[in-house]
Amino acid sequence: MYEVEVKVKLKNPEDVRKRLEELGEKVRTVRQRDLYYQHPCRDFAETDEALRLRCSDDKVALTYKGPKVGREKSRVELEVVVDDFETTDAILRHLGFEPLEHAEVKKLRTVYTLEVNGEKVVAALDEVEGLGTFLELECKADDESEVDEKEKLLVSILEELRVEGKRVRHSYLEMLLDQGE
Amino acid sequence: MYEVEVKVKLKNPEDVRKRLEELGEKVRTVRQRDLYYQHPCRDFAETDEALRLRCSDDKVALTYKGPKVGREKSRVELEVVVDDFETTDAILRHLGFEPLEHAEVKKLRTVYTLEVNGEKVVAALDEVEGLGTFLELECKADDESEVDEKEKLLVSILEELRVEGKRVRHSYLEMLLDQGE
Repeated sequence: MYEVEVKVKLKNPEDVRKRLEELGEKVRTVRQRDLYYQHPCRDFAETDEALRLRCSDDKVALTYKGPKVGREKSRVELEVVVDDFETTDAILRHLGFEPLEHAEVKKLRTVYTLEVNGEKVVAALDEVEGLGTFLELECKADDESEVDEKEKLLVSILEELRVEGKRVRHSYLEMLLDQGE
Repeated sequence: MYEVEVKVKLKNPEDVRKRLEELGEKVRTVRQRDLYYQHPCRDFAETDEALRLRCSDDKVALTYKGPKVGREKSRVELEVVVDDFETTDAILRHLGFEPLEHAEVKKLRTVYTLEVNGEKVVAALDEVEGLGTFLELECKADDESEVDEKEKLLVSILEELRVEGKRVRHSYLEMLLDQGE
């Protein structure tokens, strides 16, 4: 199973929001705060790993992401729900994990679902502090041969939503770290 | 606030259980499995810290214990409830935390409360795999000056419960590690 994703930094967020309300179904709006940590004795930037603590309105989760492997950049992703943000952060700091500088991602995420050609697509409209507003479209492909076709589908939805803006391939974390440099 | 504790390795566990049923109130019986981890780049035995993942019937918790400080050996103790034992264990292993050898503590804990001289005392009858059956009595002291007096109270309860056995000061983890050496 592959996740296919396109992401655009929006020039016209309010237009896109209106089109999403018309064409899709709003699932939820959630405020998310992500903290990324560095490892006490190895460099996650080098090993291509990440440890993230995410605080949402509805839950707190600790996520480990392993190095990207293969052409499609899939990776191990392990997540547990924890019952307290501050205590988990304190445990991590006692163990020597320090939050990366410029690595706190705060966003207001509104999630929509769209049905296009029988395909279920998840659209996330992300207002990211310090970065702007982004649209992420995501769907699933059963195998690698489907990836290109699914990506074309997502690009066609961008057109239908009259999205104006530049496609981006970096994560919000990478963009914030770039800004901080 | 201080926690005052006495612990005895029981020679007569079934007699003590009967006395507890008569004199106290049974709160719950819970099966607990504890895994202790070593840090990827420092020696917890040297720094006097511990990282424990505990799986009970009713919940899974990750606990950090800091070094003992002061005469009364108080220590930082931070605990979060997590939603999955296996995933938390997998995240810790990916981060380089490996379970210590001989450091899996499995026990069946029956908890009672007793009221003695207006003092609430918690009694835990622990059947520990590979170690035997122990009774732990615990109560709270508001400040250091009360500690001795509270300990005397606990010792008097041992007599009332007709406890036979040797008082122990080591944790179950330390006892298991000693056996493994």
